[in-house]
Amino acid sequence: MTAPNAFPVLSSKSELEEGTVFAPRFDTNGLITCVTIDAHTNQLLMVAYMNAEALRKTLDTGTVWYWSRSRQELWHKGATSGQIQTLVEMRTDCDQDALELRVTVGGDGGCCHTGRLSCFYRSVQLSDGTLKLVQNSK
Amino acid sequence: MTAPNAFPVLSSKSELEEGTVFAPRFDTNGLITCVTIDAHTNQLLMVAYMNAEALRKTLDTGTVWYWSRSRQELWHKGATSGQIQTLVEMRTDCDQDALELRVTVGGDGGCCHTGRLSCFYRSVQLSDGTLKLVQNSK
Repeated sequence: MTAPNAFPVLSSKSELEEGTVFAPRFDTNGLITCVTIDAHTNQLLMVAYMNAEALRKTLDTGTVWYWSRSRQELWHKGATSGQIQTLVEMRTDCDQDALELRVTVGGDGGCCHTGRLSCFYRSVQLSDGTLKLVQNSK
Repeated sequence: MTAPNAFPVLSSKSELEEGTVFAPRFDTNGLITCVTIDAHTNQLLMVAYMNAEALRKTLDTGTVWYWSRSRQELWHKGATSGQIQTLVEMRTDCDQDALELRVTVGGDGGCCHTGRLSCFYRSVQLSDGTLKLVQNSK
């Protein structure tokens, strides 16, 4: 018997890389890494994780669900903030252990809980021999 | 005594999110997630991981080093293929547990071991009630 959210599992490297079967590879915690990108601007918005249930809900609803590692619960992104992420395209990488989510964003168009548009709002810079974080335009 | 590759550790959420100290948060395996993007085209190239040593080598050399989870060794990206990734900008996210690497790529400009420019060369599509992978233009 398979779990209701189960996805196919492939062990062949060539099937994983060249086949047409979507067989997402979850890690030992049951999670897969997601890179979320604004489909219009191509801006990197955030990195988060899905378990099989979150992935299934995302595919079923067309809006993005993650697994919150800090809260240990399913997380319908934007449910409280209005920053709902509508899935435009989902891509996977060669060995199917990461997902690229191309989305449009509701509400104010942002994603970060600090109020910035993107979570990647700081750059690492070397200044007087010390690494510092400097706010970038995001 | 600190390890030679050690980075600062911050426990305060406000310092992590709003401070100027770069304090990358490695997971229980000692790794941090890296999202690598072509600085010219803004294209998502790959997702990979660094340990503290790989991160230090990247900052010291200006070219990208990862930790290969499959081979369990340091990996100077492009050392054999010529697809060296030169770091243009490194960004971190709000809670400093992910890095955005904006790079220019040597050799043929690609990154995927399958020969494609990007590792994200397939889209997930629903066809006749079944999820299928379809090659995209990457």
